[in-house]
Amino acid sequence: MNDNAPSSPRIHLPEYPDILDAYKRIRKSIHKTPVLTSETYNQRFESSLFFKCENFQKSGSFKFRGALNTVLQLGEDEIQRGVATHSSGNHGQAVAKAAKTRGCRSVVVMPENAPKVKVEAVKNYGGEVVFCKPTLESREVTLQELVEREGLVVIHPFADPRVIAGQGTTALELMLEVPDLDLMIMPIGGGGLISGCSLAAYNRSNILRDAVFKEDLPNTEDIPNVEHLPNPGKTSQTGKSNPGIRIIGTEPKMADDASRSFHFGIYTTTGNRHTIADGLRATIGRINYDMIRRYVNDIVTVKESAIIHEMKTFWERMNLIIEPSCAVPLAALPLLGDEIRNKRVGVIITGGNLDLNHLPWMQESE
Amino acid sequence: MNDNAPSSPRIHLPEYPDILDAYKRIRKSIHKTPVLTSETYNQRFESSLFFKCENFQKSGSFKFRGALNTVLQLGEDEIQRGVATHSSGNHGQAVAKAAKTRGCRSVVVMPENAPKVKVEAVKNYGGEVVFCKPTLESREVTLQELVEREGLVVIHPFADPRVIAGQGTTALELMLEVPDLDLMIMPIGGGGLISGCSLAAYNRSNILRDAVFKEDLPNTEDIPNVEHLPNPGKTSQTGKSNPGIRIIGTEPKMADDASRSFHFGIYTTTGNRHTIADGLRATIGRINYDMIRRYVNDIVTVKESAIIHEMKTFWERMNLIIEPSCAVPLAALPLLGDEIRNKRVGVIITGGNLDLNHLPWMQESE
Repeated sequence: MNDNAPSSPRIHLPEYPDILDAYKRIRKSIHKTPVLTSETYNQRFESSLFFKCENFQKSGSFKFRGALNTVLQLGEDEIQRGVATHSSGNHGQAVAKAAKTRGCRSVVVMPENAPKVKVEAVKNYGGEVVFCKPTLESREVTLQELVEREGLVVIHPFADPRVIAGQGTTALELMLEVPDLDLMIMPIGGGGLISGCSLAAYNRSNILRDAVFKEDLPNTEDIPNVEHLPNPGKTSQTGKSNPGIRIIGTEPKMADDASRSFHFGIYTTTGNRHTIADGLRATIGRINYDMIRRYVNDIVTVKESAIIHEMKTFWERMNLIIEPSCAVPLAALPLLGDEIRNKRVGVIITGGNLDLNHLPWMQESE
Repeated sequence: MNDNAPSSPRIHLPEYPDILDAYKRIRKSIHKTPVLTSETYNQRFESSLFFKCENFQKSGSFKFRGALNTVLQLGEDEIQRGVATHSSGNHGQAVAKAAKTRGCRSVVVMPENAPKVKVEAVKNYGGEVVFCKPTLESREVTLQELVEREGLVVIHPFADPRVIAGQGTTALELMLEVPDLDLMIMPIGGGGLISGCSLAAYNRSNILRDAVFKEDLPNTEDIPNVEHLPNPGKTSQTGKSNPGIRIIGTEPKMADDASRSFHFGIYTTTGNRHTIADGLRATIGRINYDMIRRYVNDIVTVKESAIIHEMKTFWERMNLIIEPSCAVPLAALPLLGDEIRNKRVGVIITGGNLDLNHLPWMQESE
């Protein structure tokens, strides 16, 4: 899917008001997902971890925020035409469910080898499924043909300011509940989540001062040093001066295009995509890269074995079902050491859609 | 374990003030677990379901509430002696973790075939494990010998007013968050949870009026008809006149001693115990039976296949890990039909401790 697809009418990088507007737009229709804590995890990492549980979000992942924020901004003519996207997983389900809220047709292009459970989920939310070959090229060509033939409106999974602003409401909500985080950590696939969340984190002091959220804040007295939180300053081009909250992106080593782009300072989308973290196989979007350069402090990569191990550990300790992509930031925690010690760390738990009949630790032992 | 064991100093049935005191005692040390909702479930049952997620409770189940409420009431001499219990699962973990909060020794008698993961969990919380043969008789004899030899204080899993009052805080918290439930549904093993929760539900109007909880209530305006909620009247001996909230207990057909006791009106503890719902294999306690007769409206039994099916469905739809015992009320929902239609139904999600290497749907297909 091309970043400059004609169906993305706005190409500006989203700014704070976009996130604010997105939240006002979607807040009544999304789950305000719980923030969970665990003594076991806190002791293990000698830090205070706050898990923002988007695996409880409608459609099973944070993707519903961005999809809904986009669908709610479509004109009546666009709603009449219907929407389309390609996705092997969460974005497809999110678009189908979001479209349904406006009685809008939705079509999701999915690879023919997509897990049955994900295909069924899209259909259950009222989406139509069109199959393609399991290559990125086939996905894009199939979607393009479909759009041209049937006049559908494309909802890009990450390289769209409306989607980015929607995903950013995840961090906004987390900061309203835990206003004094030192650090936030999350996975990177195409970069939609981290673009929005890093922008929101950069504007923490705006968010905490905004009258709109007064009622959401736990208690005025609970907000530590709100007057002393740094103001958003001039945007740094190095990505190193994000005021207040450090933002750490995480990627599988087997799909590290964002990490390489970030560390080498050159936008790159090549590399292998064989990670078990199927939600992170997408290559990073151009506007997402631009935002990551601006607002993200570091990107850490993790091994496949660590993803599986930490996924299972989280299931056992937290009684939460998370998918492999979601375990990527958890697998990064042991690598961060001093950087998180004695810190207050927000971890975005992104989603829990996976096939329970094929669990990686079961496959391992076969 | 005998209901009249000398280590249970109080034999009165717990009353409302006991639950109130329990909550004041433990509230700072427990997780206020989230209440989750699901459009998918609501549509399926044409009702509003509120899942009180005690699988997120410390030690992984609601059992921590009762264990902690008991440990916190022990005298210094009892703490010096240490505590003991027998358990194949959640109660053992809860006692070990609760004892640790007071630096107290804890010993858990476990069957020698208990899953390794549960044995490890007890040890991780600082408990000592003593193995016995996998029969109820061996458990009780082993515990009795241990207690006599080492002077330990027994914490009964369910037939103790302190434990019952602690478990009742689960319903108390749920009602503070969702004050206008029509019905509450939960599993029955020994009966500790339902004894406490039905007592709490019976006292809903007291709880909602109690100044202690003012700050916990969502918003005065959100509390519907608080002035019109029924006062607790004279206790009915038929168990049919619980004012305000109907209480439905659920049991596996393969361990239906509470159901038979309730429906025949004769306390009975015989019957088979071969259900997959390992947390519900205990026979109902005498004082628990007395409370169930008073405060519970009905008990519904479910098949083993339904337990497994609904457990997997809940994992898939809710992204929550629950154990087989916890799926028993979920398996009862399809049987309730009109009784829950258009009603506001609280479901106690009791726990999520199980061995992820042995999932029932995997075993089925082998």
